[in-house]
Amino acid sequence: TPGPEKSDHSQRGVCVFDCRPKSTEATGRVIDIRNLDYNGFLKAVSKEFSIARNETFVLTTTDRREIGTDIFDQLEDGKTLHLLHSVDQVLPMATQERIEYLPHYHTLVQSGMYEYYASEGQKSLPYAFAELIDNALSATADNTGVRTIDIRLLFDESQGKPAVVVLDNGRGMTSKQLNNWAVYRLSKFTRDNGTFQSDHTGYSRPNPVPRSLNSDISYFGVGGKQAVFYIGQSVRMISKPAGSPDVHEFVMSKEDFERKEKNKEEIYSGVILNRNPGVWSHVNSAEEPFLQSLIQEEVGKESFTAVVITGIQPEHITYLKQHFSMWTRELAHIYHYYVHGVTGNDLRDPSGKSPSNIDIQISLVEKSPRLPRLVNLREVDNDMQTLYVSSSVAVFEFKASAEGDAAVEGLLRYHPFLYDRETYPEDPYAMPGPADDDDEECVVLNAEGRGKRPIFECFWNGRLIPYTTVSEFEWCARPKKGASVPLECYNRISGVLFANDRFQVSTNKLTFMDLELKLKDKETIFTRVVNGQEQRVKIQREFVAWLKDCHEHFDKQVKFMGFQGVTSRSDV
Amino acid sequence: TPGPEKSDHSQRGVCVFDCRPKSTEATGRVIDIRNLDYNGFLKAVSKEFSIARNETFVLTTTDRREIGTDIFDQLEDGKTLHLLHSVDQVLPMATQERIEYLPHYHTLVQSGMYEYYASEGQKSLPYAFAELIDNALSATADNTGVRTIDIRLLFDESQGKPAVVVLDNGRGMTSKQLNNWAVYRLSKFTRDNGTFQSDHTGYSRPNPVPRSLNSDISYFGVGGKQAVFYIGQSVRMISKPAGSPDVHEFVMSKEDFERKEKNKEEIYSGVILNRNPGVWSHVNSAEEPFLQSLIQEEVGKESFTAVVITGIQPEHITYLKQHFSMWTRELAHIYHYYVHGVTGNDLRDPSGKSPSNIDIQISLVEKSPRLPRLVNLREVDNDMQTLYVSSSVAVFEFKASAEGDAAVEGLLRYHPFLYDRETYPEDPYAMPGPADDDDEECVVLNAEGRGKRPIFECFWNGRLIPYTTVSEFEWCARPKKGASVPLECYNRISGVLFANDRFQVSTNKLTFMDLELKLKDKETIFTRVVNGQEQRVKIQREFVAWLKDCHEHFDKQVKFMGFQGVTSRSDV
Ligand SMILES: Nc1ncnc2c1ncn2[C@@H]1O[C@H](COP(=O)(O)OP(=O)(O)OP(=O)(O)O)[C@@H](O)[C@H]1O
Ligand SMILES: Nc1ncnc2c1ncn2[C@@H]1O[C@H](COP(=O)(O)OP(=O)(O)OP(=O)(O)O)[C@@H](O)[C@H]1O
Ligand SMILES: [Mg+2]
Ligand SMILES: [Mg+2]
Repeated sequence: TPGPEKSDHSQRGVCVFDCRPKSTEATGRVIDIRNLDYNGFLKAVSKEFSIARNETFVLTTTDRREIGTDIFDQLEDGKTLHLLHSVDQVLPMATQERIEYLPHYHTLVQSGMYEYYASEGQKSLPYAFAELIDNALSATADNTGVRTIDIRLLFDESQGKPAVVVLDNGRGMTSKQLNNWAVYRLSKFTRDNGTFQSDHTGYSRPNPVPRSLNSDISYFGVGGKQAVFYIGQSVRMISKPAGSPDVHEFVMSKEDFERKEKNKEEIYSGVILNRNPGVWSHVNSAEEPFLQSLIQEEVGKESFTAVVITGIQPEHITYLKQHFSMWTRELAHIYHYYVHGVTGNDLRDPSGKSPSNIDIQISLVEKSPRLPRLVNLREVDNDMQTLYVSSSVAVFEFKASAEGDAAVEGLLRYHPFLYDRETYPEDPYAMPGPADDDDEECVVLNAEGRGKRPIFECFWNGRLIPYTTVSEFEWCARPKKGASVPLECYNRISGVLFANDRFQVSTNKLTFMDLELKLKDKETIFTRVVNGQEQRVKIQREFVAWLKDCHEHFDKQVKFMGFQGVTSRSDV
Repeated sequence: TPGPEKSDHSQRGVCVFDCRPKSTEATGRVIDIRNLDYNGFLKAVSKEFSIARNETFVLTTTDRREIGTDIFDQLEDGKTLHLLHSVDQVLPMATQERIEYLPHYHTLVQSGMYEYYASEGQKSLPYAFAELIDNALSATADNTGVRTIDIRLLFDESQGKPAVVVLDNGRGMTSKQLNNWAVYRLSKFTRDNGTFQSDHTGYSRPNPVPRSLNSDISYFGVGGKQAVFYIGQSVRMISKPAGSPDVHEFVMSKEDFERKEKNKEEIYSGVILNRNPGVWSHVNSAEEPFLQSLIQEEVGKESFTAVVITGIQPEHITYLKQHFSMWTRELAHIYHYYVHGVTGNDLRDPSGKSPSNIDIQISLVEKSPRLPRLVNLREVDNDMQTLYVSSSVAVFEFKASAEGDAAVEGLLRYHPFLYDRETYPEDPYAMPGPADDDDEECVVLNAEGRGKRPIFECFWNGRLIPYTTVSEFEWCARPKKGASVPLECYNRISGVLFANDRFQVSTNKLTFMDLELKLKDKETIFTRVVNGQEQRVKIQREFVAWLKDCHEHFDKQVKFMGFQGVTSRSDV
């Protein structure tokens, strides 16, 4: 259905300012030009401004462009014109020209295109998907039973054009909330979810929870849009809120914006479809056959949201297929503590964990005979946090309190030296660093273990913020001299910082704005946390004592006893 | 002057869909409710849909909210309603609900707030200023004489509230171009600068120039807005285009948007003031006394643009005052090659440079008795590129050609070992890295010079992209074994990559999207450049030969000849 036209052709008036040298009139006068041609227009102006018959005058735009017959026909409603004696005449007083400056629709369509930049040789596609998982975590936060987040990559050409679907069994959206979803930069802080003034459903901050695992990972009002327009060029939102029998559907696409622009229709006007669950008659089955079965799945569901992205960038399809293990592993890294709980995933102790009720499932379907790939993030056993947790023998917990109530929970883990090797985990996908090339030339004792890598990964509201790391703090940094613990022990620690939303992240959630600056401020207080209790202590002393303890208890060096000389055997 | 009201109260109609069980009507009918109360409305609906006297019906929103007397009064023009038999009744067919989803004005007002993140312990305020310098470079690109970019920090409270002014003597903006400036995400690629269809003034790509110093550093249509709303909360754009006697002025501010929202006025409607140069009567001299003298400076100027930012964030003011040298130095770093030309700033050879016609001047005025601070970026002698250029004894130039016509000019510089020390420059503001702590423990030969730092800084259209570095390429990386040049020579090289706009940067221009990924693609071809000529050679062999040559010619080791023993002197 065509939308409302931008220019209401029932109105066409220009606003003319009398800028002749003797004028003192500060406001313009509207001249209705609906049924006038150019000459009629000149007559109307002469009459309106009482221009004498022998008086020379000229009408120009505010850019001094003289209005002639050709330009007159193109004048739009509301245009400001100047009435002057001559085209170069100086303005006798200021004129006020009304302008419209609606943001261009690229605000939506290119919102994600230049946001998720590659780093350390890795594409950042997982972080675009993370925006959609963030939203699904928020939507499922009040689920009593299981929280299902289903990422389906439908790349079987025989089933239609490529599509990505993110489906959750969360609370869904009313048509009002779906309308709000579409409003760029309308954040939870700003919007009013009620339809009428009597509905006061503003945002209230959740109570603090350990590791800030609050499922409240929204801040800017842009993430979902940025993600879908980074991954593809069109999104169909389908949602059913609990307590209503209706499903609401809304499409936003580059193609649709371009069409509206071309037809001079209102750009930010659209249509929400309200329907019964399971109704797929409006879908073009030839173009999007998968949609029909997706819609049929709706029947019987109390509430859900499906984000259906099409027009997927070809290079993303290639990447998602070729590097399935790598990017699903990274998603497991980002949501490690949501999936496994506050203690994390210790492979050595499967019984110790409380089962999490968050199921994040990724499936990739390709054309036969390729088999579908399926993974539940809980099953991933080689993401970095799993590797850290599973090789950790001791944990040092602390808290950093910065100004306001900005607080960070922190922990350090010890990865001991066992007999013949360091157990500090390596990242199998990491680019070889410059350090690796030096092994043969360098007799440095700390080339192994952590090496020059930063100690701390950083999490925000419980999810990883991938491109911000903190190298160390003064109190846990290798001392320059006078160390009471062997220096290599400093290479056996990894750490995690868990920040809440009193710390800002960048709009694309790839970096913190100033986490390190704030934590390294002299006002920041570090306290040790033991059994959940904060202790005001000298943190450096406590840490060094802990490190020494770890070294003495957990590092296992092979001791050679009673060396007796070298023998050679020829039979081996 | 109040703006146009958002809701045209001359219209108030609701769009009612007949959703009674037997209905097959797919379109809604508009019911005019202008002069109706609730009961009148029910009567009108009954009549319109021929509802029988004894038939029960209910009217709801698309969210199943029953319309009662209280809600009826709040219904706005264009609202979609459902006519149902009962409030829980299933929809017999889909309804199409028209919605508006204008981007929230935070799209502008918070466009910069979470963009310029700190890194390596440094605030990123210089990079926000860089957006404004980018724009000024573009505006002055066609100047025949000097190109002046004036950054004035007016922090003298006795002269009014704090303000930042960026003033250039570039081509200025017509009122149409100023209107376009205000349209978020309207890029040079998309906009039409002409007022009428006959003006075809689209974008044409400039011819390639060395180091891509093309002054065409705009891409997204957001930088200027992001910068001003990162630095402050209000901006006044003042501009005079060449060829017109008029000055055009436009204000965009957080306060103004909030007022429009509160008064239910059109959000993206504003006023451009058109006036004679030097006219300051519209300015509130009590609030912004500096504006009066700024406006008076206009007289006699052919063209200019002034960006006047107020509502400066207090923490920025503190930073700008306290770290003046540091952040102006970083600006000199970013624009090094614009200010000094392709060869850069060699302090050893002042006569060798061609004088640049770009004057980027920063001035900071504080309250008496503090003296004003003033610097021309050309005078800065300790930005990193100056330090690299001035300690370089030899240059290896190359080119990397990726797919399409994406080409990068590159160079490597050799910083020799002279007698007792490395000359590879240190960054006086850099945070001590973990490496520094190891000096005493580590006998690594390459702990000095470049160390683990990346080789290449990266520039885009001639300006620095600060947070993307490239460690090395295979052909100039330290070999693991069999090096024909001493390994420490690899620590004596620094490099620069100059990319054109075939390589994408992130929207905030802090990082490249995928420069390293593209350059390390196996299709990328590296060629050596000698005297401006590309040579298809084995680049690694050429580089190693050059490195060896540098070592033999330029590294000066102290040689001890005829060692004769140790003596001790007690008189020193
Ligand atoms: N899966 C979903 N289920 C329910 N509501 C959703 C879902 N996804 C998005 N929404 C709604 O749409 C709004 C906009 O989402 P979007 O991700 O664009 O911004 P945001 O989450 O508010 O903020 P951020 O920019 O930090 O992501 C959300 O705040 C939420 O109310
Ligand atoms: N100092 C100036 N002089 C003349 N025109 C300017 C000036 N500053 C901005 N403009 C105009 O306003 C437009 C918008 O500027 P803005 O920086 O917001 O976006 P952009 O430069 O087009 O793209 P980018 O996001 O890469 O900066 C510019 O393209 C230019 O036409
Ligand atoms: Mg979100
Ligand atoms: Mg710009």
